[in-house]
Amino acid sequence: MKIRFYNARILTMEDNKIIEGELHTDDTKIAYIGPAKNNDTIFDREIDCKGNLLMPGLKNAHTHSAMTFSRSLADEYCLNDWLHKAIFPREAKLTADSVYCFSKLAYAEYLAGGVTACFDMYFEKEANARAAVETGFRHVFCGAANDYGGFEDLERYYIELNSYDPLVSFIYGFHAEYTTCEDNLKLMSDLAHKYNAPVYAHISETKEEVDGCIERYGVTPAVLFDRLGIYDFGGGGFHCVWFTDEDRKIFKDRGLWSVFNACSNLKLASGITPVYKFISDEMNIAIGTDGAGSNNALDMFREMYLDTVLSNVETHNAAAIDPFKILKAATTGGARCMGLSDCDILAPGKQADIIMIDMDRPCMKPENNVTANIVYSGSPQIVKMTMIAGKILYEDGKYTTLDIAEVYKDAAGFMEVLR
Amino acid sequence: MKIRFYNARILTMEDNKIIEGELHTDDTKIAYIGPAKNNDTIFDREIDCKGNLLMPGLKNAHTHSAMTFSRSLADEYCLNDWLHKAIFPREAKLTADSVYCFSKLAYAEYLAGGVTACFDMYFEKEANARAAVETGFRHVFCGAANDYGGFEDLERYYIELNSYDPLVSFIYGFHAEYTTCEDNLKLMSDLAHKYNAPVYAHISETKEEVDGCIERYGVTPAVLFDRLGIYDFGGGGFHCVWFTDEDRKIFKDRGLWSVFNACSNLKLASGITPVYKFISDEMNIAIGTDGAGSNNALDMFREMYLDTVLSNVETHNAAAIDPFKILKAATTGGARCMGLSDCDILAPGKQADIIMIDMDRPCMKPENNVTANIVYSGSPQIVKMTMIAGKILYEDGKYTTLDIAEVYKDAAGFMEVLR
Repeated sequence: MKIRFYNARILTMEDNKIIEGELHTDDTKIAYIGPAKNNDTIFDREIDCKGNLLMPGLKNAHTHSAMTFSRSLADEYCLNDWLHKAIFPREAKLTADSVYCFSKLAYAEYLAGGVTACFDMYFEKEANARAAVETGFRHVFCGAANDYGGFEDLERYYIELNSYDPLVSFIYGFHAEYTTCEDNLKLMSDLAHKYNAPVYAHISETKEEVDGCIERYGVTPAVLFDRLGIYDFGGGGFHCVWFTDEDRKIFKDRGLWSVFNACSNLKLASGITPVYKFISDEMNIAIGTDGAGSNNALDMFREMYLDTVLSNVETHNAAAIDPFKILKAATTGGARCMGLSDCDILAPGKQADIIMIDMDRPCMKPENNVTANIVYSGSPQIVKMTMIAGKILYEDGKYTTLDIAEVYKDAAGFMEVLR
Repeated sequence: MKIRFYNARILTMEDNKIIEGELHTDDTKIAYIGPAKNNDTIFDREIDCKGNLLMPGLKNAHTHSAMTFSRSLADEYCLNDWLHKAIFPREAKLTADSVYCFSKLAYAEYLAGGVTACFDMYFEKEANARAAVETGFRHVFCGAANDYGGFEDLERYYIELNSYDPLVSFIYGFHAEYTTCEDNLKLMSDLAHKYNAPVYAHISETKEEVDGCIERYGVTPAVLFDRLGIYDFGGGGFHCVWFTDEDRKIFKDRGLWSVFNACSNLKLASGITPVYKFISDEMNIAIGTDGAGSNNALDMFREMYLDTVLSNVETHNAAAIDPFKILKAATTGGARCMGLSDCDILAPGKQADIIMIDMDRPCMKPENNVTANIVYSGSPQIVKMTMIAGKILYEDGKYTTLDIAEVYKDAAGFMEVLR
């Protein structure tokens, strides 16, 4: 497919400038960005953008997609009880088929909210990979090993899922320090060294987690992982709420990625990440929604908003965060964190993972500052189109690859067992 | 117009139960709610809801609608500087025509976000009232008097705007203690007593405001207003961030309304209202967005979300707030706060101020808990239709009374002068 977008405004995210002109795709890639031009290309489709904005898709850099089953199911627990009383018993009843279905439900929400890739930690990965490829969604798996299982499969996943399909990849990861004994952490480090590979995990999400790690090892999770060589080839962590200055220094010095999950941390009463500190230290940052059970939406706009204004109130400074830096974290940052260096900005040769922002929504007017409007006033309502690898998957509220009625019906059926 | 909604789910907000059946309107009112029935009524329109949810419209109980001009215009200031450096100089350039235009822009955003009434504090009220009636929007004006002006017009507005149109009403109010001298506060009290009328004002929005009031009067604003008799016939205040226990007791004992504005308070670094305390004291509460300059969206879903999860993180309790109570504050509470007792719930004889929630959006699935889904996962995207006084003003993304292209064009024109 060759698609021509014309009368477009284009925010490449290389900088905070908006280009007026055209964007052409060729198969999975961007072929051209620039002024309107006459050439001999025959396009399969020409789309009049009517001044709407093309920009890189949002990258959900930490999620558990198939946890859509748990939305509004157990809203009354803090993290520890929530996991052990509400989630783990129900996860034991999940099957390949239900993970396949609930992942598709998540993809539907991602696409409707301008998300073009997710960094996903969950199980039943084969079924999930099938759902991703059928949908056309870009899915980066993160290893989810812990003491209850998963380490035995990590290497196989690494090999199999990284050659499964161009839309699918796999990055090493484990659940968290508090669910992973030292022997398994060392096993993780060995794998990182064997493949020169980055590693990700939940890290410093709650104060209890950090206190427990200090009790067990005398150091914080970041220091522990660093000492064990887990981070020798990069990677990073999800949440980072209770990072110490030393933890931030390790992440900064090693170029590790800190992924923020503001909504989940508020909802589960875990805490507030001091995003402003990570930004003033010029660290590598990305943004994720976490799973639907603890958020409860998979809405990157809400995350971006909170990553700005929560720092304002924490620092008593209404300008604590430049909103463009948050938009960058949610697009370019996320892509690089997830190993998707060809999905980070809009440029010829890059993957055509593009969203169209509807500039004709009232919340986008007046246009005093377009990127500030997106971060401070945006919501899924402003997403007019979502394209992944050159294929339009969502347009004007309709899905092109998902049979959404079937997804809803199947999800309701599986809930009979899970509820 | 008589409209029949069938195959509907109906959340009347009288309780947290969902009825399946029909809702009929007759002119401005609800005529019937109940099971499908055969009768001889000839309807002007019959709408198959396909299982979507009808509920009372959201009530934006504190806003400055025409401040849409200031969206993303001056994001770098805390409240005091923001007012004096960015807002007041530009407000001096506003005209009746520009307020008319920017109010219509706000109505467009309200309608697209399921808001059916606003409690609005601003000036150029005649032009604004004209915009409201032309749009069909339900607009409750709040007096905005302060030492710079407005007291001389309060009584005239009270009389004129309360007989202007059924969609328009006026409630006494003044800006805040820190902009209003004691003589003017007494004048406010005299008017309240003359008309047995409730009074509203910004109250305890910032710590500086409360500290300043204590310096000037030895008491907090709530105590001061109470002593001056301003609250003798009810009313309440906007923000209520820095309320003391004594302030809350005054509001509780007098049945006054506390209106929360979480986004604005975060963005301007004013603070976090301990919503959980107001709820555990069973106080009268409502929710507003504040103006677009300090939010920056006019999105009641984001407000509802924050009024739950910010209390979670403050109390280290993931179940600090029952989401249904927040949905009640945003609908029934707001209506009663604004004097709209006939717009509080869905019931025969009440005004037909109704929204349809699109239950076929992925963020509304699975349906483990419909009201929790709305509060925790909702966004303007789930609003399928907005009706005020029996008239559909917004449906499937389209406006029926607003020429939205013209509103955008005019707003851009006025910005040339204001920017």
